[in-house]
Amino acid sequence: MSYINFPSKLLEAAVDEFVKLPGIGRKTALRLVLYLLRQDKEMVNNFGNTLIKLRNEIQYCKICRNISDTEICEICREKSRDHSTVCVVENIKDVMSVENTHQYKGLYHVLGGIISPMDGIGPNDLSIKELEARLQNGEIKELILALSATMEGDTTGFYLYRKFKDYNVVISTIAKGVSIGDELEYADELTLGRSIINRTPFKPS
Amino acid sequence: MSYINFPSKLLEAAVDEFVKLPGIGRKTALRLVLYLLRQDKEMVNNFGNTLIKLRNEIQYCKICRNISDTEICEICREKSRDHSTVCVVENIKDVMSVENTHQYKGLYHVLGGIISPMDGIGPNDLSIKELEARLQNGEIKELILALSATMEGDTTGFYLYRKFKDYNVVISTIAKGVSIGDELEYADELTLGRSIINRTPFKPS
Repeated sequence: MSYINFPSKLLEAAVDEFVKLPGIGRKTALRLVLYLLRQDKEMVNNFGNTLIKLRNEIQYCKICRNISDTEICEICREKSRDHSTVCVVENIKDVMSVENTHQYKGLYHVLGGIISPMDGIGPNDLSIKELEARLQNGEIKELILALSATMEGDTTGFYLYRKFKDYNVVISTIAKGVSIGDELEYADELTLGRSIINRTPFKPS
Repeated sequence: MSYINFPSKLLEAAVDEFVKLPGIGRKTALRLVLYLLRQDKEMVNNFGNTLIKLRNEIQYCKICRNISDTEICEICREKSRDHSTVCVVENIKDVMSVENTHQYKGLYHVLGGIISPMDGIGPNDLSIKELEARLQNGEIKELILALSATMEGDTTGFYLYRKFKDYNVVISTIAKGVSIGDELEYADELTLGRSIINRTPFKPS
């Protein structure tokens, strides 16, 4: 079904919209549109209007650049959180991942990307100036770099370290090592090597 | 990421909408929503409004029940098509599949489903009465049953045959046999057996 004669222009237009989404081909798009056609009008109206509302009303927190329904996001407004620790992440998905661990009670800074010369993304494309402004404020005592364990992540981390090392702030990075639940024989050498170098005191639990 | 703390109610609402679609889980939904967030407002407005327009304005052809932008669909209106032959299919996807072969120039009748006692779908749930009305009109000389080669398809075909065999109409069914391009040794026995029984005169091309 590489070329399809659509019986309806409305149907074709809807399929064309779905095909714009990443990972959605024409067959899947048609399946999704036909599914929507079988739902009642209220459901489809809600579907469309919710997406339109999201795009038109969403804001980015003025402090940490996280996605937010308000000028300052819930996390930055929360008094009980540790405002002296900032976890630096690539995007809002990473904020959600770290929040999901329930292990972190500090604030965040969303870079909005990662330094990647291959993709033409340099430091000026990221919210690094905004991070510097927060550091100059003086309230921050520790920056935790929670970046991907990739070349781009390492490059970005190194760039941030060089830029901010003279501020009166501890710069740390998340631990790299063997995943919880992994059998040692299946861990790759780089990860296993790193986990030996970065060994921690044994604490019987 | 079974449970996710969303940083924004708008974001969560949009993800909840996408999750309603078949085959879309929460991770995929989040990916799609974040993609839409990165597009400009016009694109997202178009996306939402196109779907809403489709659902509110779509019609079903009064003759063949195919999806249509008008009361009578393009196929039924087309004078050059053979109005004495009607291809009976399960749904509008099947109309598109047959149209896509460019081998058929007759009309269609969309049943809107297939007889399936397991799913609680009986003859009265399908547009069989509408098909009978078309037959009573007298213009139709041949009914081609183009139903799936499954138990439900066979049941539906048998039901239609019994119901319409006394009308002055030829009832035929699409050929079942080895797929074009298939090697014989990989064809299943049922299909190969059927293709021997239903052999056709050899025509050198």
